[in-house]
Amino acid sequence: MLRAPETQPEHASLAAAVLGRRIIELCDELAQFSEEPGRLTCTYLTPAHRAAASQISSWMRAAGLDTSIDAVGNVIGRYQSAEPNAKTLIVGSHYDTVHDAGKYDGRLGIATALVVAEELSRRQFKLPFHLELIAFAEEEGVRFGTAYLGSRVIAGRFEPQILALRDASGATVAEVIASAGGNPADIPALARRPDDLLGYLEIHIEQGPVLLEAGLPLGIVTAIAGGARYAVAITGVAGHAGTVPMASRHDAVAAAAELTLFLETLCRETPGLLGTVGQINVPGGAVNVVPGRCDLSLDIRSEDESKLARAIADVHARIAQIEQSRGVTIEVTELQRTPIVPCAQSLQRLFADVLQKASIPVHHLPSGAGHDAVMFDGIAPVGMLFVRCGNGGISHNPLETVAEADAGLAANVLLDLLMNVHDGR
Amino acid sequence: MLRAPETQPEHASLAAAVLGRRIIELCDELAQFSEEPGRLTCTYLTPAHRAAASQISSWMRAAGLDTSIDAVGNVIGRYQSAEPNAKTLIVGSHYDTVHDAGKYDGRLGIATALVVAEELSRRQFKLPFHLELIAFAEEEGVRFGTAYLGSRVIAGRFEPQILALRDASGATVAEVIASAGGNPADIPALARRPDDLLGYLEIHIEQGPVLLEAGLPLGIVTAIAGGARYAVAITGVAGHAGTVPMASRHDAVAAAAELTLFLETLCRETPGLLGTVGQINVPGGAVNVVPGRCDLSLDIRSEDESKLARAIADVHARIAQIEQSRGVTIEVTELQRTPIVPCAQSLQRLFADVLQKASIPVHHLPSGAGHDAVMFDGIAPVGMLFVRCGNGGISHNPLETVAEADAGLAANVLLDLLMNVHDGR
Repeated sequence: MLRAPETQPEHASLAAAVLGRRIIELCDELAQFSEEPGRLTCTYLTPAHRAAASQISSWMRAAGLDTSIDAVGNVIGRYQSAEPNAKTLIVGSHYDTVHDAGKYDGRLGIATALVVAEELSRRQFKLPFHLELIAFAEEEGVRFGTAYLGSRVIAGRFEPQILALRDASGATVAEVIASAGGNPADIPALARRPDDLLGYLEIHIEQGPVLLEAGLPLGIVTAIAGGARYAVAITGVAGHAGTVPMASRHDAVAAAAELTLFLETLCRETPGLLGTVGQINVPGGAVNVVPGRCDLSLDIRSEDESKLARAIADVHARIAQIEQSRGVTIEVTELQRTPIVPCAQSLQRLFADVLQKASIPVHHLPSGAGHDAVMFDGIAPVGMLFVRCGNGGISHNPLETVAEADAGLAANVLLDLLMNVHDGR
Repeated sequence: MLRAPETQPEHASLAAAVLGRRIIELCDELAQFSEEPGRLTCTYLTPAHRAAASQISSWMRAAGLDTSIDAVGNVIGRYQSAEPNAKTLIVGSHYDTVHDAGKYDGRLGIATALVVAEELSRRQFKLPFHLELIAFAEEEGVRFGTAYLGSRVIAGRFEPQILALRDASGATVAEVIASAGGNPADIPALARRPDDLLGYLEIHIEQGPVLLEAGLPLGIVTAIAGGARYAVAITGVAGHAGTVPMASRHDAVAAAAELTLFLETLCRETPGLLGTVGQINVPGGAVNVVPGRCDLSLDIRSEDESKLARAIADVHARIAQIEQSRGVTIEVTELQRTPIVPCAQSLQRLFADVLQKASIPVHHLPSGAGHDAVMFDGIAPVGMLFVRCGNGGISHNPLETVAEADAGLAANVLLDLLMNVHDGR
């Protein structure tokens, strides 16, 4: 059923509405393959995951693509150029999910690329480059604790020690690949030569509220934010809450509170900086005991390397100051440091041109979350387009939504871009 | 072995040193009765606890006191006045302990009263009132989760439903009393008539650093602080730490941090007010998730009812303000509200007179912790003397210490007060 015209955003064409409806239907169909009844969970190489791959490959074949599933489970559909020596443009995203996931994280990008390929096939439109749709087998890192497994292989970043990682049941990556019929020895040959790649594009649900709050259907990603994660252990002096005077205290929770508010204020005052204390705990704490220990996590992100470096330095300086002023010791352990991945200016301009042509307001924004695109940094020019996330911007959650109209606009933009990419570059 | 004179504080007389040594020895001997090898744990009506009661009663008998153990396990030694119709002055404290306890919490007061009774007996000094030493069976609330079990009975505050409380093994208070040979039906008759009581005195280790930091051996307690304990549940909105802009967040940990620092600042700026966040936690929190929930505890105490009431009102006002400014909801549940128990001015003056006579600096301080004395509020005039706590003021810990000299001074002060109480009142 088509939506009534009055409920469509002004930019949505009838064609976009049709494409959008098909994208949402594809995501709905794909969501039926799940490890858990009543909720969507589709982790690496489980039966549900392999069934999803099989479904995607049959859609790709039906769209006229040369389709295959590689050794790690990536589903690849190739729309050949008439020029055999042409470079390849990859449009990708992932089909694995988190536990109790939404239907659009990763899959929206796959479905959008698929309907665009269907459209190209239908029009028998010849491209001056090979187009490859890749549905990556693994991005979320749920089963083996390491992310980007699918795109890592294609980008040539796969390291052999990953094969030895074990899931909760004790099975290794190598074992589950083998039992799914893949040969781990084939993996190195799956890496693409950077010289052969024209670029890497990814359409993805924003997973945040920025476009929603701005009232915009689409956004051009400027960079995928990098950041640092720390485990912070504050040691003060435990004492009786009724007998230790305020001035004699070395209260670990108060020190943690000071650090938390410092990080929040710093990030509020610095556009493009995000800071989060997501975990905090007093081991063995009691209502009536001045806490002698507090453990907390810090997550600091930015799309700007110099802002990030300055923020990290500021946080460390404040930590030293809190140690001094409160007579506590603060141990900081870096858990993770992710580099910032800039999107290619050329592809950002191309997206902007297409949006303008379609009378869609051009809005740039960074991606706070990581995506498969991260793996292609330095391998190929990277471009990303975000689609508005409904429901307050919620993601990694069954409440995740995308409007048909927005998905349709994204498909139209991708189609137009692909049909014009030789002009714009 | 006597301490060398140069290591004794200037106020310590030789007699005090002898009494002090005996007090510490009694505490050492009593610490041998424990439920756990290598550490002191003596909880209500365990075999170790009953052996401790037996030891205390034999000391009392040896000191010439009319000694008995009542139905709930209180050990009572009576030093009869020549006047049969005289009133009774109780000197008490408890002999149960927390897990892995220090040797002086509760027991210091019992041992001090005991050596004073020995001294009165030795001198055959006749008092114009009956003196009762009571070693209360239960004050810490470890086994049944309710405190002051021993003093509650003597003060006539025992409620029958306490008999139905169960310990971790499922045994009720009534059952353990019966299996120790007591008859729960006898409990109501153990309550003293307020008219018969001259007063209630308690010597106790400070369990804090105030006297230690002031360089003073003893302190006169002005009041036993009251307070309130709250469970606070903050509900914000969970989100992706990389995608939710700072301005769109409803971060439960940041709200908790603001509340924590508000309480700390309020208490630092208000003498006589103590505030503690001893527990804080994000249920199911993750490093990369903006926390949608944070649970924390608040403990607010004062020896001054109006300061306490104002502080509680200020905290509630700030909570409402945080709800508004941060778009979070904060649910506050009162866990406990303890009234402030003032010590009798008459007994404070009497202590001060005796201290001055002994050239010991007079220092008044509130008690932040609760004591058996709390139960006698409104039943009899209450007086408390604190003895300096060594080792930084640590208590509820095997590192708890009291200096022999300080214990000896406390005994001397109590002895002098008892011998002169008819003059001062």
